[in-house]
Amino acid sequence: MPNIKSINHIAIVVDDIDSALLFWRDALGLELSYVEDVPDQNSVVAFLPSGQSEIELVKPTTEDSGVARYLRKRGPGLHHICFEVEDIDETLQRLKQHGVSLINEEPTIGTGGKKIAFIHPKSTQGVLLELYELTDAEPEIRLRRARELADRVMSRGQTAVSAAMDFLRNLRNGSELPPERQN
Amino acid sequence: MPNIKSINHIAIVVDDIDSALLFWRDALGLELSYVEDVPDQNSVVAFLPSGQSEIELVKPTTEDSGVARYLRKRGPGLHHICFEVEDIDETLQRLKQHGVSLINEEPTIGTGGKKIAFIHPKSTQGVLLELYELTDAEPEIRLRRARELADRVMSRGQTAVSAAMDFLRNLRNGSELPPERQN
Repeated sequence: MPNIKSINHIAIVVDDIDSALLFWRDALGLELSYVEDVPDQNSVVAFLPSGQSEIELVKPTTEDSGVARYLRKRGPGLHHICFEVEDIDETLQRLKQHGVSLINEEPTIGTGGKKIAFIHPKSTQGVLLELYELTDAEPEIRLRRARELADRVMSRGQTAVSAAMDFLRNLRNGSELPPERQN
Repeated sequence: MPNIKSINHIAIVVDDIDSALLFWRDALGLELSYVEDVPDQNSVVAFLPSGQSEIELVKPTTEDSGVARYLRKRGPGLHHICFEVEDIDETLQRLKQHGVSLINEEPTIGTGGKKIAFIHPKSTQGVLLELYELTDAEPEIRLRRARELADRVMSRGQTAVSAAMDFLRNLRNGSELPPERQN
């Protein structure tokens, strides 16, 4: 300790990204950094940084994901909090020693190569918690995905120049979806 | 803009502060900065900083507050997010221009002299949002309350020395409840 570094993000389930942005970006005034399709989580996510943390608006893209079920049952609202930790293995070990119920007993590799694990709400006074550790692999995986995307964009007939511009813009934003195809 | 500075706190409604601390402090490893009785909000609140933000565990102390009703209806869980803003009047004005439903059309003065206002969940995809602006009056009001508390402690027969130590400790923590009477 202190192994918990900061609140990395707060995830909010929404039924429509565009209408959610009318409040969170346009009215409240948060900056939208990017929108990302996350197929392995069956969702589209909009990222709006605020200080050290981010608001993540999550829209399910299938009917049967956990987030989709949450939305059907409870409507839009707060879904989970994610803490960035120094050492996720150490944190999980300490939680086990305290008898905490874990959804992931071992860290899994999330989007972009980060290590993540979820804690069950029954141990946390009803709050779904995610733990996140930044790994050395994360920037490399993001770079590879951005390159693959740039290749796809070029093969669709865009000029090399505009593809390179997309590529650079997305690298800067940490996004893998060029703005013109954002949802 | 950027008028929104950071996520000031995330409030979690709990039915018992001590058992909640078994997870949030002891297992997860957040530091407990202080526990405060907030009579004008009918609650006891435990503050656990994490980076720029704080986790606030809120336990209702009456049956009829909004937080008590929330707890009865939905059980323990995420209650609201609070953003610190540069200028709360400007933020509220912009929100009104965008047709956002406000619980407080004008800022109210919260615990410690801070300016706060709540945004209705129907405008935010189901998330109760608090806005908070640090005012010049806030440190002064906190200091006065700490002094009043020190006076009460002394009048209960503690030695002047131990009261002064409580006073200094609470000033440092920003708390108005000495640790030995924390809930």
